[in-house]
Amino acid sequence: MTAATHGPVLVVGTGLLGASVGLRLRALGVDVRLQDPSRTAVALARDVGAGRPAAPDDDEPTLVVVAAPPDVTADVVARELARHPEAVVTDVASVKGHVLAELRAAGAPLDRYVGSHPMAGRERSGPSAAVPDLFLGRPWVIAQAQESAAHAVLAVRELAVDLGAVPVTMDADAHDAAVAAVSHVPQVVASLMAARLVDVDESALGLAGQGLRDVTRIAASDAELWTSILAANSAAVRPLLTALRGDLDAVIDALAAADAAQGPETVGAGALVTIAHAIARGNDGVARIPGKHGGVQRTYDEVAVLVPDEPGALARLLTDVGEAGVNLEDLRLEHAAGRPVGMTIISVLPGAVAHLEAELTARGWRLVA
Amino acid sequence: MTAATHGPVLVVGTGLLGASVGLRLRALGVDVRLQDPSRTAVALARDVGAGRPAAPDDDEPTLVVVAAPPDVTADVVARELARHPEAVVTDVASVKGHVLAELRAAGAPLDRYVGSHPMAGRERSGPSAAVPDLFLGRPWVIAQAQESAAHAVLAVRELAVDLGAVPVTMDADAHDAAVAAVSHVPQVVASLMAARLVDVDESALGLAGQGLRDVTRIAASDAELWTSILAANSAAVRPLLTALRGDLDAVIDALAAADAAQGPETVGAGALVTIAHAIARGNDGVARIPGKHGGVQRTYDEVAVLVPDEPGALARLLTDVGEAGVNLEDLRLEHAAGRPVGMTIISVLPGAVAHLEAELTARGWRLVA
Repeated sequence: MTAATHGPVLVVGTGLLGASVGLRLRALGVDVRLQDPSRTAVALARDVGAGRPAAPDDDEPTLVVVAAPPDVTADVVARELARHPEAVVTDVASVKGHVLAELRAAGAPLDRYVGSHPMAGRERSGPSAAVPDLFLGRPWVIAQAQESAAHAVLAVRELAVDLGAVPVTMDADAHDAAVAAVSHVPQVVASLMAARLVDVDESALGLAGQGLRDVTRIAASDAELWTSILAANSAAVRPLLTALRGDLDAVIDALAAADAAQGPETVGAGALVTIAHAIARGNDGVARIPGKHGGVQRTYDEVAVLVPDEPGALARLLTDVGEAGVNLEDLRLEHAAGRPVGMTIISVLPGAVAHLEAELTARGWRLVA
Repeated sequence: MTAATHGPVLVVGTGLLGASVGLRLRALGVDVRLQDPSRTAVALARDVGAGRPAAPDDDEPTLVVVAAPPDVTADVVARELARHPEAVVTDVASVKGHVLAELRAAGAPLDRYVGSHPMAGRERSGPSAAVPDLFLGRPWVIAQAQESAAHAVLAVRELAVDLGAVPVTMDADAHDAAVAAVSHVPQVVASLMAARLVDVDESALGLAGQGLRDVTRIAASDAELWTSILAANSAAVRPLLTALRGDLDAVIDALAAADAAQGPETVGAGALVTIAHAIARGNDGVARIPGKHGGVQRTYDEVAVLVPDEPGALARLLTDVGEAGVNLEDLRLEHAAGRPVGMTIISVLPGAVAHLEAELTARGWRLVA
């Protein structure tokens, strides 16, 4: 099955993800039917071009995509498997183990079910936020079970490819452990850190720099959605949080020892080492996150440039970077409250640094060497 | 005293901060002398233009800037106060309470001492990383004591202004509480989160998105420096970490309840509420961080644009933003491993969104609405 040969697809749940699936499939010429407990959600999804409302006399879909909230996903998948006895059914819930376990316990025909999880999302939700490119280049986990039939796995894999995503095969438990580590635990950590700021003096917050902003950015996420995700993946999230608490306990104890001492010489043996070890282990962990291009960790060097806070300044800088023939691998802006200039940090391949610095200096930019 | 009337300044400790102070003061025509236990550090600082090595027959400095590691700062300040009985002495250590307490205990002449802390730094260290603009637009905390003489406070305040920084007055304890909340605790949290990644499967790390990268970015910081900072500020850091541990305990307990239950209906009363409350409190905390322009929290709207991963593409986008007459308030790039395009998220004032979206669409950009 390829894009051109997809049979009719039924999308059940027409929020952000479901409507985005429909939008992209429609662009490929696929017959997409929409179904949702909310008639408004179906109408909105239709209006943005994600497909047409499902009708009682529709012929059978070959593929059903369930994009329901995580806590009802298993029920909806079981119902759709029963309603459409020839169709392959997938879901896009962000936790996979409990869906599979519930379906297995219910005796659902698992040969036609393949769970999946596109690693894509937006800060906005609902069908009106849908876009056909939502999945472009994102990993799409295919969490096939032992019972999954080969043709079912292939259908879901090709769905991912047709949507522009990169399929990644992983069983449900491995998936849940992975997203616990790279997404769910970071969410809890960012939220707990940000929660500490509720009681902080406003004058203190005026000293906040880019570090605090980065650590807490995802703390702005939706509480209801995250409660559902964390509860559904508690088995994988809890051990990681418990291990983190163990490390935190060690740091707190070491700080207590430092606090009681009169200078570094009198700090009890091991306390300073405990703190240094915690930071050094963080160095090791962050170094393992793959770079932009995936696979092997790429190391970039950074060039920091002062950019006036005025329209067009950053565009001029990046035009100059382009004219210098240097490919920009990453870019971030740093600014503290009230600064008249921003610092723009450009990541480039190590070999390009000297050339870029010379070119930018020649064009009048002030580098923070 | 203004830039033009600064008397001779002695910089003690010629690492990144000390040499950057010297560089900027030299540019203002000030006579800067350099002193450091490392003769190499003095020579390097001289070579980058930060001043000249102090000599035994120098006339008296009017201002001494101590830029030594935090654990030796009090000793060095006390020594310099004694050596230069007419000079004002300041330091730039990132923790202020213990320096003041040690000086007070030693009976140092506190009328001529005013602690300070520029909120500036770089990932690189040492005199060779020094730049005159390091402090430009950054908050510079003036942590004056009750004993500080008015002329001494004024001298340090004008130093900050001459270096391009924004002076912020705060007593030593308030400073230490502030940096614990906005810098030291976030560092510990980021490091502990990143440390959890050491044991994670490489395939799991391939699913990492921008959220994980943001939460852990500062975990790449120097372990030795941070051990010294955290130990010196343990009194302010520990209560915050202990409070965070309390919140973490509650989340872990709630997850245990969710884990033991068979679906949301059977989760014990309060467990889901605890999780939702933790995330919602994080929402409240992150909303308190001041925006780019400081003072009142500014709310920006975001426009997300797909940008091909090719040289010059981002520059073209920003040129188009500029030509649309829209001021870019912030910008960030999001990319996951292996994506052929990046998503660029542009923050603008809410009133500018519709116009910008129309202009960019007309110029052929694909928006992720």
